[in-house]
Amino acid sequence: MAVNELTEKECGDLLERTSIGRLGCAHDNQPYVVPIYFAYERDYFYVLSTIGQKIEWMRANPKVCLQVDEIANESEWVSVIVNGHYQELPEPQYTEERARARKLLEKRYRWWQNPLGERQLKSGTDLIVPTFFRIQRVSMTGLRGTAEGKEWK
Amino acid sequence: MAVNELTEKECGDLLERTSIGRLGCAHDNQPYVVPIYFAYERDYFYVLSTIGQKIEWMRANPKVCLQVDEIANESEWVSVIVNGHYQELPEPQYTEERARARKLLEKRYRWWQNPLGERQLKSGTDLIVPTFFRIQRVSMTGLRGTAEGKEWK
Repeated sequence: MAVNELTEKECGDLLERTSIGRLGCAHDNQPYVVPIYFAYERDYFYVLSTIGQKIEWMRANPKVCLQVDEIANESEWVSVIVNGHYQELPEPQYTEERARARKLLEKRYRWWQNPLGERQLKSGTDLIVPTFFRIQRVSMTGLRGTAEGKEWK
Repeated sequence: MAVNELTEKECGDLLERTSIGRLGCAHDNQPYVVPIYFAYERDYFYVLSTIGQKIEWMRANPKVCLQVDEIANESEWVSVIVNGHYQELPEPQYTEERARARKLLEKRYRWWQNPLGERQLKSGTDLIVPTFFRIQRVSMTGLRGTAEGKEWK
């Protein structure tokens, strides 16, 4: 197996054709990793989320890491790691960005209605407002593992 | 869709039937997330790795987070999050644990020979020693999303 670095274009292609990633944030140097669905556009990852530990932590420390991959098997895979900055999109400052996020995440937004409803039932509150946020890409690296790499033959 | 917490047994079952996860570590509150292959046994996750950023960071800060999931689609998934402690397994103190790790990771070990060889070629050194480490599980939580949850019907 060969392990080679991806070009910037190859990294971008993976981010565009993928919609799930694992988001890492940190608080007092304790990391926390959760799976997220995102829409990627022009150096930003748009996400729709309920309030919870990850939001609280990212508000306190906006440094995040987003890891995205396609793993066929142990020797055929690509993985991209993005260091980024958490940015919340509250009204009214980010009305335009929220509209963009809502459009990009439209299908997902409907899907969120039910878990949101479920959480309302559990928490007993009348309303849980979903939070739009985005991750600004600061840096990006990627690796590809191939069973029959040219460099390894 | 309903989102429900997993029992400790359900979390453990997922960790035992899965071998890939995303490992988060942190340095100066910058998180870093990478995919890893592991073998899980009695509250420990055994991993075989080359030296690199994640090892350097975990040596400096052993607090880690391991996230493991099975995602069928947006409304059918399970995800387990483990907070843990990085523990390296150097010789000679951990001879027994290394032997155990090597046995558990035997298939994987063969698979690693080539990327190790590849890295040797690239770095120009004669030998890159693979590092065995393990993550001690400190706490664990899990969630399940179901399209037709009993609580949601």
